[in-house]
Amino acid sequence: MLESNPARVCRGGSGPRYPHRVPRVVVDVVLKPEISDPQGQAVLGALGRLGHAGVTGVRQGKHFVLDVEGTPDEAELREIAETLLANPVIEDVELHLSGS
Amino acid sequence: MLESNPARVCRGGSGPRYPHRVPRVVVDVVLKPEISDPQGQAVLGALGRLGHAGVTGVRQGKHFVLDVEGTPDEAELREIAETLLANPVIEDVELHLSGS
Repeated sequence: MLESNPARVCRGGSGPRYPHRVPRVVVDVVLKPEISDPQGQAVLGALGRLGHAGVTGVRQGKHFVLDVEGTPDEAELREIAETLLANPVIEDVELHLSGS
Repeated sequence: MLESNPARVCRGGSGPRYPHRVPRVVVDVVLKPEISDPQGQAVLGALGRLGHAGVTGVRQGKHFVLDVEGTPDEAELREIAETLLANPVIEDVELHLSGS
């Protein structure tokens, strides 16, 4: 079942990340480095117990995919990302304008 | 406060996404398109009420950043992503090997 639905692999940002016709904007919300991440720690502990010792750190965040009508307005999208999708006290946001 | 910590903006995958020294692998877990997304719908509704009518769709997923010791083993990381970080019945995974 997994073979019929392989994960898409992107290397170093080559090619468009979301090759769709509708303009899409990706917002990744990650905890600031100084904020502890119990979810990531739990995943890391589980990976270690399951024998995946090569993974030495895990941080978990949120991933939003926004469909945007017309040309994405970067300033508006940044405001949305920083004030509505993330808590700027504890989280950083990364805005990815796919350009597709 | 936000001005002193602007969101990083990546356009079309130009440049390394995670310019760190430790090899990092990003795993994005998104719901399959046919699975309803109440969280995304709630965000979309809030954006509409707040006047951001340009956003016509929102899907919310999970974003994992893994620190990997040595050279990332793509097959092992794909197995981790597909079987441990995601529920393959309802979720798709996207594996991003940053190469840094």
